[in-house]
Amino acid sequence: MNDLCRLSASEAVERINQGEITSEALVRACLERVEEREPEVEAWVHLDAEYSLAQARERDRASNRGPVHGLPFAVKDIMDTADMPTGYGSPIYDGYRPRADAACVAMTRAAGGVLLGKTVTTEFASRHPGKTKNPHDPTHTPGGSSSGSAAAVGDFMAFMAFGTQTLGSVIRPASFCGCVGYKPSYGEVSTTGVKENTGSFDTVGLFGRAVEDLPLFRAAVTGEPVRPLGPVSVKGLRVGLCRTPLWDRAEDYTQALVEGAAAQLAKAGAAVSDLDLGGPFTDFETMGRRVSDYEIARALSWERTRHFDRLSEFQQGKMKDWPVVSYEEYREAERVMAACRAYLDGASEAFDVLLTPSATGEAPAGLDNTGDTSFNILATWTYAPCVTLPVFKGPAGLPVGLQLVGRRCRDHRLFETSRAVLAALSG
Amino acid sequence: MNDLCRLSASEAVERINQGEITSEALVRACLERVEEREPEVEAWVHLDAEYSLAQARERDRASNRGPVHGLPFAVKDIMDTADMPTGYGSPIYDGYRPRADAACVAMTRAAGGVLLGKTVTTEFASRHPGKTKNPHDPTHTPGGSSSGSAAAVGDFMAFMAFGTQTLGSVIRPASFCGCVGYKPSYGEVSTTGVKENTGSFDTVGLFGRAVEDLPLFRAAVTGEPVRPLGPVSVKGLRVGLCRTPLWDRAEDYTQALVEGAAAQLAKAGAAVSDLDLGGPFTDFETMGRRVSDYEIARALSWERTRHFDRLSEFQQGKMKDWPVVSYEEYREAERVMAACRAYLDGASEAFDVLLTPSATGEAPAGLDNTGDTSFNILATWTYAPCVTLPVFKGPAGLPVGLQLVGRRCRDHRLFETSRAVLAALSG
Repeated sequence: MNDLCRLSASEAVERINQGEITSEALVRACLERVEEREPEVEAWVHLDAEYSLAQARERDRASNRGPVHGLPFAVKDIMDTADMPTGYGSPIYDGYRPRADAACVAMTRAAGGVLLGKTVTTEFASRHPGKTKNPHDPTHTPGGSSSGSAAAVGDFMAFMAFGTQTLGSVIRPASFCGCVGYKPSYGEVSTTGVKENTGSFDTVGLFGRAVEDLPLFRAAVTGEPVRPLGPVSVKGLRVGLCRTPLWDRAEDYTQALVEGAAAQLAKAGAAVSDLDLGGPFTDFETMGRRVSDYEIARALSWERTRHFDRLSEFQQGKMKDWPVVSYEEYREAERVMAACRAYLDGASEAFDVLLTPSATGEAPAGLDNTGDTSFNILATWTYAPCVTLPVFKGPAGLPVGLQLVGRRCRDHRLFETSRAVLAALSG
Repeated sequence: MNDLCRLSASEAVERINQGEITSEALVRACLERVEEREPEVEAWVHLDAEYSLAQARERDRASNRGPVHGLPFAVKDIMDTADMPTGYGSPIYDGYRPRADAACVAMTRAAGGVLLGKTVTTEFASRHPGKTKNPHDPTHTPGGSSSGSAAAVGDFMAFMAFGTQTLGSVIRPASFCGCVGYKPSYGEVSTTGVKENTGSFDTVGLFGRAVEDLPLFRAAVTGEPVRPLGPVSVKGLRVGLCRTPLWDRAEDYTQALVEGAAAQLAKAGAAVSDLDLGGPFTDFETMGRRVSDYEIARALSWERTRHFDRLSEFQQGKMKDWPVVSYEEYREAERVMAACRAYLDGASEAFDVLLTPSATGEAPAGLDNTGDTSFNILATWTYAPCVTLPVFKGPAGLPVGLQLVGRRCRDHRLFETSRAVLAALSG
């Protein structure tokens, strides 16, 4: 592998800014890696080498420098691109080319990014899988729905890649593929031009290789300047171990790894205590799924009413009896979700960060199922930001992430805390 | 005018269901009216007579009957349509034809509706006006942003038409053009396939000719059965007269008309009292505009970064210094809006319905400005449902509406109350 591929996005941008490397060299390194690995991993649905190189050369000639100047990035094929086909993981959109770029794509390009290509998504960012394999073992799932983005970054084919999370579509595949994953606070990144799954939960997120990559993404998609990561001390850090009501679904080794990390942080001086989620969370999973079932069948109204036969059996099963969830049940579920959000917002004030599993365990064998989302719904549905760090290995030798959940709308602080936690666990 | 044009949507559907008229006859009536009036009003951007008739004949042959079976409806050109051009009121989208119908369009077609055509919108449902004139006086604005939909229904060219409201884009033009207008509770109707303006506020709404039309629309876009309007007694009805902190912006005659309506309801036995909006509303307008300025510049990222020169001067002015509003200011503004929502939710419990102006007065002269949104932000930004009833005339003889604001997620109840209020004011 060309060593440039191993750089993190932040290192790559830094070296471009120092004049040490060109954007073209970065793109060539990615393309070489793709040539080597794509036959096995199948992370991409569209990649045009000449076009990527042309964009890179244009960046290399340009004088204005945005926060991700010259950086090749990949985009989940649930996001519209004006100059590349966009298929949403569904044959209904074969040959479709949108008029406009999704807002997050346009902003990242305006910030200097080079759009390398489109990565595999499950059908409409839901559960019906695409072709991608786990780069660490092609007989295992890469997770989903952002399967291709996770695999591309985890396998060094791209420096950073965009995904979306509605249940667990960034954090879980990042954990399975050994990347850093980031699911922002709800509303942090525009979803304009991202095919809607569940509007109340859909969040644009990132796959990267280092915590330091996250502020670059944030700057690109908010238009704010890049904020450097300030120091956070683990000594006295208030860490909440949040097993969630679904703890029993985690593998024994996952429970042990997360509890071990908490113990290690305590040893490093952190003030670790348990956060038990109380009353309103009893129906959290049931009610969240109601919101999701209601909204996706509504968002896919055209597909449902005009192209039902081209939906997967999975989606057909979900939608055949529309409305599956009644209006009253939907609004009731929304009220429960709002109560859970308010509860967690309050409970989180006693903590700097929460620790919880990124997934139940390592990537399961087989490609039919993208894995269990049980540990992803907490942060997604309560709108809290979260990061997964690739710090563990499971019994089959596959990556297992550790999830850190921050306080709502304090995403930058979560990055700083994540860096400190990572250092403490690595030290 | 062909008398069929004067039917309300609910009457038209009823007569189709009784076998008294055909969908084709309704479409022909609309087309005749369009031929007569469109040169003066210019409500439409796309209308294909043959295609509308073909759809209608298909409905007339079909045996399954949805809630709006055979009913011709018009759609604001901010909504995607797979079989008609979609321009969002911007030359950037000249010749654009989306792949899919917006969810609300697909659902209404699945409910039996006949899509007559696309109506004029201001640029991106914002303030830069289109070509439409007020059908009651072509030297006056029809209002905006749903200009064409309001004019088409107000001028008997369509039975019902869809619009969107982000500030005052349904209620105000409905008031100016003499229609019934309905802006649902936030989240009531899917915005999938509707070009985003301000995601936190965008709401799909309806122009109709009678309160009885509103449950048809609601059934079509929620997939629920049509619920008949139950009786509501004005006697004892708890009516809140809500002047809002912006009362001084209403014309004297508007103030007198709204206060007169309150007095008339009191005389009919309603328990009328004032609702003064308290503390959190001091900064309501400033903070709501912040949310809007932040989100629209972000939603239009592709247009802003790639086609800035083809935006109107108005949009260019709004966006040239992106980010105009900082991230911290945006999140602060969101918190204020949430506090206002919670305050109004609480205060509304003491009332069955609130009365407030639909607009500052009748449609202003001139076509450069779509009018003042001051009395529309309350319901839109607090997510409450509202209806405007065409009950008044202004000094120039143009229509002036009365706005009724209901409790959040109790839209059907608001319809029932609106019918009772309308009867009391007409009686």
